[in-house]
Amino acid sequence: MTGAPLPIRPERLLGRLEAFARIGATPAGGVNRQALSPEDRAARATLAGLAQARGFRVTQDGMANLFLRREGLDPALPPVLIGSHLDSQPTGGRYDGALGVLSAFETLEAMADAGLALPRAVEVVVWTNEEGSRYAPGAMGSMAFAGRADPSAWRERLDDNGMRLGEELDQTLASLAIAAPRPLGFPIAAYVELHIEQGPVLEREHVPIGIVTGIQGVRWLEVRLEGQAAHAGTTPPSFRRDPLAAAAAAIHRLGETLMPLEDDARFTVGRLQVVPGSINAIPQAVTFSVDLRHPDVGRLAKLDEAVRAEIANATAKEGCTARIESLLDMAPCRFPAAMIEVIEAAARRVGAPARRLLSGAYHDALFVSDVAPSAMIFVPSRDGLSHNEAEFTEPDDVVTGARVLCEATRALASA
Amino acid sequence: MTGAPLPIRPERLLGRLEAFARIGATPAGGVNRQALSPEDRAARATLAGLAQARGFRVTQDGMANLFLRREGLDPALPPVLIGSHLDSQPTGGRYDGALGVLSAFETLEAMADAGLALPRAVEVVVWTNEEGSRYAPGAMGSMAFAGRADPSAWRERLDDNGMRLGEELDQTLASLAIAAPRPLGFPIAAYVELHIEQGPVLEREHVPIGIVTGIQGVRWLEVRLEGQAAHAGTTPPSFRRDPLAAAAAAIHRLGETLMPLEDDARFTVGRLQVVPGSINAIPQAVTFSVDLRHPDVGRLAKLDEAVRAEIANATAKEGCTARIESLLDMAPCRFPAAMIEVIEAAARRVGAPARRLLSGAYHDALFVSDVAPSAMIFVPSRDGLSHNEAEFTEPDDVVTGARVLCEATRALASA
Repeated sequence: MTGAPLPIRPERLLGRLEAFARIGATPAGGVNRQALSPEDRAARATLAGLAQARGFRVTQDGMANLFLRREGLDPALPPVLIGSHLDSQPTGGRYDGALGVLSAFETLEAMADAGLALPRAVEVVVWTNEEGSRYAPGAMGSMAFAGRADPSAWRERLDDNGMRLGEELDQTLASLAIAAPRPLGFPIAAYVELHIEQGPVLEREHVPIGIVTGIQGVRWLEVRLEGQAAHAGTTPPSFRRDPLAAAAAAIHRLGETLMPLEDDARFTVGRLQVVPGSINAIPQAVTFSVDLRHPDVGRLAKLDEAVRAEIANATAKEGCTARIESLLDMAPCRFPAAMIEVIEAAARRVGAPARRLLSGAYHDALFVSDVAPSAMIFVPSRDGLSHNEAEFTEPDDVVTGARVLCEATRALASA
Repeated sequence: MTGAPLPIRPERLLGRLEAFARIGATPAGGVNRQALSPEDRAARATLAGLAQARGFRVTQDGMANLFLRREGLDPALPPVLIGSHLDSQPTGGRYDGALGVLSAFETLEAMADAGLALPRAVEVVVWTNEEGSRYAPGAMGSMAFAGRADPSAWRERLDDNGMRLGEELDQTLASLAIAAPRPLGFPIAAYVELHIEQGPVLEREHVPIGIVTGIQGVRWLEVRLEGQAAHAGTTPPSFRRDPLAAAAAAIHRLGETLMPLEDDARFTVGRLQVVPGSINAIPQAVTFSVDLRHPDVGRLAKLDEAVRAEIANATAKEGCTARIESLLDMAPCRFPAAMIEVIEAAARRVGAPARRLLSGAYHDALFVSDVAPSAMIFVPSRDGLSHNEAEFTEPDDVVTGARVLCEATRALASA
């Protein structure tokens, strides 16, 4: 790649971010635009309208994944796909997902503005239901696109108001009449996703660009310890079978060992419930969640084993029983070296300091990487906050991220 | 004391236990007879009716403490008071409280059956609101009797249905027209209370009678740890301020040190809540309760200090903050040696194996002991269960307990 970077229009991109933040805006400055909701449909329609006005081709597949295509010199070549998602958590922020979609759209417009003729088409994608907050699991659109799951199995799922996913999906599809239908899954040359980091590393290190080397694997466990409820005052230590004492021992020891011993391990207990929950009663049962992450699938399995062993040890000591259920098991992915180098080269061309890092959260790119070389670009999140109405990324970082995405896309579409 | 023990009538006592278990009976075989409720009033009225039929004098004070008096040879001597409470937890058992009241009433009837003429009057007392489940605190009746609290301060308290204590108390008093009013608090010679152990010691050691040497002091703390909510996947260890990790460390270390080092110490965490409680989020805040017990007031204060120090240590290490609030501070009591010996002598006369033990739970006797020599007799609780619909005491143990109470009362009323 030679010559100056393709100019993007910062005020257009930042204005679009503002405009999309108004679709499903919450009083606290965040966004409630859950998957397949009227707000989600409005955001899709707005973007499709903008695309049509620029002459980009608008299509959608059966999962309501939305595509906006700028044609290449050779329409027979698989396109470069760039994008993210427009759905949000119920009290979500303005950047999670939307930033990736609107930066991708800015890339398409910048190419059109410059009249750039590239061998490959570039398509902006809006994946359906990345968040999974209304209908679990998350990343339905990209998972179905990559052929990892059969979407028909999801149609009967109900949201908290008893609304069926199947009907909501059909209405979402019908509401976007300007989009031509398209089969689910098609060959693509590459996929690039720009996203906020949702963590504190880039901000604290004052680095505007993160080049994602891979996405950690995740396992979720639900642990239920059962002891015996008894009176706090009248039950001597030798008669106690206290599941909270066992839980505290296991959580404390795992916290002391798993993460300090392995840089890349993540161990979090985010949920813990005590029954009956009376001040003067030894608990009957304790249920807690374990969130385990590791970029290596074998090490992730070892962490899982270590958790089970420590829980067995702690419960045996307290005379309690343990039941451990697996709620989620998502294997890690590593992005190809060639893709990482494309992003690094793009950051250099833009003059943006960059560092490599792992993604702790899953993204649509995890699933798309099954079917095409993929990569991700991160920009800083203030205080590492995400899934939070206070989510914020500096305008300068937004623009830098979009510039890197635009250069990387240009390179990929030229190959 | 010479001659055979006074005969009691086991079938009468066991029949009464059955009859009173029907007042507020729950489908699961327990009792819901909360303080000042229609069920509580029905139980009081039933007992008052039985007393009147036997010619015992029925009185009640302004706190609705109910007294049934069998006159002594010298009416001017302060009476011996025996009894317990008739109110229950919302899902309580048949024995907690009722056993002490009905055994005391059996004692009175056995004395009347035998035509026993003793120097002192004996009065059965039914203390109001020992449980405190409908209106906190518990032991209102005995606390007010002992002058430890001003009952007028309680009149504005509301139950979960918004009913004022003052009105419920007035209606309870009015509903028992046969009871003559009596001033709150009067001189008594001694107080003896029979109660189920609510713990496992007597059952596991196959000893039918516990002679209570004192009641442990209790302190309740509410601990709130505040950290910072963050994404479980994207937040490296050095950026974490995890209040649940701090709580687990403190609870585990306190559990490992406080009780093993001191036989009489009790440390229990019965309640723990995590906010926001999401599987993939490091918690923002954790709130937990601490129940501390010790028979020595100075050691109890030391336990409290140790808890605060360990929490400060654990939160400092995790970069969290802690706020600790004291919810309850009840000093321990020791029953007088002379009273303990009276109960021991009574157990010997009845031929019942007995052992001394401490009460881990508070009882009305804790407060009455402020104003008169007091003692307590425990009988076994199956599986140590109490505040539970499955509460059970063997009929043989019920009868043995009543015999010991009867002999002890006879001795005290003879002095």
